[in-house]
Amino acid sequence: MTMDTLTVNLGARSYPIHIGPDLLQQPAWFAQTLKGRQAMVVTNHTVAPLYLDTLQQTLTSSGADLTDPVILPDGESFKTLHTLETLYTALLERRLDRSGVLIALGGGVIGDITGFAAASYQRGIDFIQVPTTLLSQVDSSVGGKTGVNHPLGKNMIGAFHQPRLVLIDTHTLNTLSDRELRAGIAEVIKYGLIDDPEFFRWLEQHLPRLLAREPEALAFAIRRSCADKARVVAEDERESGRRALLNLGHTFGHAIETGLGYGQWLHGEAVAAGMVMAARMSCHMGWLQASEVARITALIEAAGLPVTPPADLSADRFRALMAVDKKVQQGRLRLVLMQGIGGALVTADFDPRALDHTLAGLASP
Amino acid sequence: MTMDTLTVNLGARSYPIHIGPDLLQQPAWFAQTLKGRQAMVVTNHTVAPLYLDTLQQTLTSSGADLTDPVILPDGESFKTLHTLETLYTALLERRLDRSGVLIALGGGVIGDITGFAAASYQRGIDFIQVPTTLLSQVDSSVGGKTGVNHPLGKNMIGAFHQPRLVLIDTHTLNTLSDRELRAGIAEVIKYGLIDDPEFFRWLEQHLPRLLAREPEALAFAIRRSCADKARVVAEDERESGRRALLNLGHTFGHAIETGLGYGQWLHGEAVAAGMVMAARMSCHMGWLQASEVARITALIEAAGLPVTPPADLSADRFRALMAVDKKVQQGRLRLVLMQGIGGALVTADFDPRALDHTLAGLASP
Repeated sequence: MTMDTLTVNLGARSYPIHIGPDLLQQPAWFAQTLKGRQAMVVTNHTVAPLYLDTLQQTLTSSGADLTDPVILPDGESFKTLHTLETLYTALLERRLDRSGVLIALGGGVIGDITGFAAASYQRGIDFIQVPTTLLSQVDSSVGGKTGVNHPLGKNMIGAFHQPRLVLIDTHTLNTLSDRELRAGIAEVIKYGLIDDPEFFRWLEQHLPRLLAREPEALAFAIRRSCADKARVVAEDERESGRRALLNLGHTFGHAIETGLGYGQWLHGEAVAAGMVMAARMSCHMGWLQASEVARITALIEAAGLPVTPPADLSADRFRALMAVDKKVQQGRLRLVLMQGIGGALVTADFDPRALDHTLAGLASP
Repeated sequence: MTMDTLTVNLGARSYPIHIGPDLLQQPAWFAQTLKGRQAMVVTNHTVAPLYLDTLQQTLTSSGADLTDPVILPDGESFKTLHTLETLYTALLERRLDRSGVLIALGGGVIGDITGFAAASYQRGIDFIQVPTTLLSQVDSSVGGKTGVNHPLGKNMIGAFHQPRLVLIDTHTLNTLSDRELRAGIAEVIKYGLIDDPEFFRWLEQHLPRLLAREPEALAFAIRRSCADKARVVAEDERESGRRALLNLGHTFGHAIETGLGYGQWLHGEAVAAGMVMAARMSCHMGWLQASEVARITALIEAAGLPVTPPADLSADRFRALMAVDKKVQQGRLRLVLMQGIGGALVTADFDPRALDHTLAGLASP
């Protein structure tokens, strides 16, 4: 299995994504960014026993001036302003200065909160993403979206702050739970649905290999997903247009996560159900054929992911939760829908009855 | 008295500073930014009874879609993550979306916290500065530094986020307390010391007119200060170099503010004492003549500002507090010192004994 490097092209803020086995043990990837600089790892209690010692040894070998790590509790319910405050306190107690670097070791929650701490500590310091879940490897570690949740809405507080480097050690997936692996596959499927129908067909054929954790298949899916994402981010870093496509399934999904309470469903699970909702609504609009909805639903179901939202979220509650989505503009809800598989689009011009049907149909199946 | 417009030149992020009497009552200045957009004013309990109604009427006339304002308690001790959280909650409850605009009506605390809320709400929305204190008019409202304090260090959490517009209504100074006016004069004097010796001489001659609140003199001092600041910010927006000069007196000053507890001394008062400390230290280095230290001290004293730090802050405490300054790099403290009046420079190459003498001399005068 080979090592691959992709680049996120953002002018002065461009950075590499290195993908390959055992990269966590190779100081060379870190040395250019870290040599002679203060560095602090942020991770959680699940990941720390598995990879923290290895990473810290590698960082020390790379020439970093390492300070004590911060180990946070694991889970979306800790992606809060309160946790952020404990991070700031740790940074000040350890006297990390503006030239210091944070290293996020973990999944999407660790990456998002560490990234926002880096964006806002002393008005911005550098950080490195070392994602250890499939979901964070294919999605959240790339593109510079950072932030925390608010009880009234997911990811409502944050910043665009690009990492200096993303390092994906594919061997970290060996310790991932099946549930977390499946949640990551939801975001992988998303790239096929947005604008990569060839990848969608590949997934229809090779999903069992991903579920069986075949290294070559996983590495291909990660590379392809990162390449798809890097292209969209390079075109529209701050989501003034096309980047919003990456939120396919997320408006419905965020409503599920916020409505149930953060951490009840994994982010990828909520996005999976949200993508099926977007597909059904696109079908109500006449933009997607029933046979395409069936293919999408079948693939998501085969991945062991939910295809309907939780039964106890009413249509009214969905509406209220979706009204605070970041894609709302001038009071109008915008949704990512599909005109065919691989033909996602962002639109506020949808028939409200299509949304009614989608919410009604799902809340009482 | 005439209306003046300066521009902060930052490419796509450039914005105007309008300075003049009664601008708060003139919708035209706001219309271009606000017409047809959601807008929310953030102010405090001191300023609200004086100017909130007037501003809200003007904003409505400008075509803004105004939602209920947020009125915060007054003072530096409220420039916290906790207050920020109440702002996020208000924004979500009022359903301000990404196209909404915040308007900061008040002094530096209101501007800094509103600016950071704008920088981080939904990963960044627009905001407008309407500064009502001399200090915020000549300094904090211009240049995009936003943030809140941490118990361990001032302004340690924040972002660079430029406003879309700064509107300075010079009539708001009529209601400012003498103490607040003097605190603002400290930052005015700072510009003379940094790189504008001609302005310093003007201040030596015309200080009594400022203290007597002569409108023409105040307007001149505001214009000159804003022009000096806008020039430095345009050259170095994110403080990788020259912009650090604007922190003259601030490393000592922040130590005073943090050490005493936020709000005990006004920011301008702490900066005043800090500038005298920087002058004395520059003299110990042989960079400033004793006669120049005397002129600086005399001007600051004539403005009714403190020229020594509080007696109960020991030299050791100063050192500990200064060690977390944002200008510390790779463990080395950098200070803004002066080679002559108008010749400020940032340096880590100072004789540590000059700092010893400065701290020892002041702590036990």
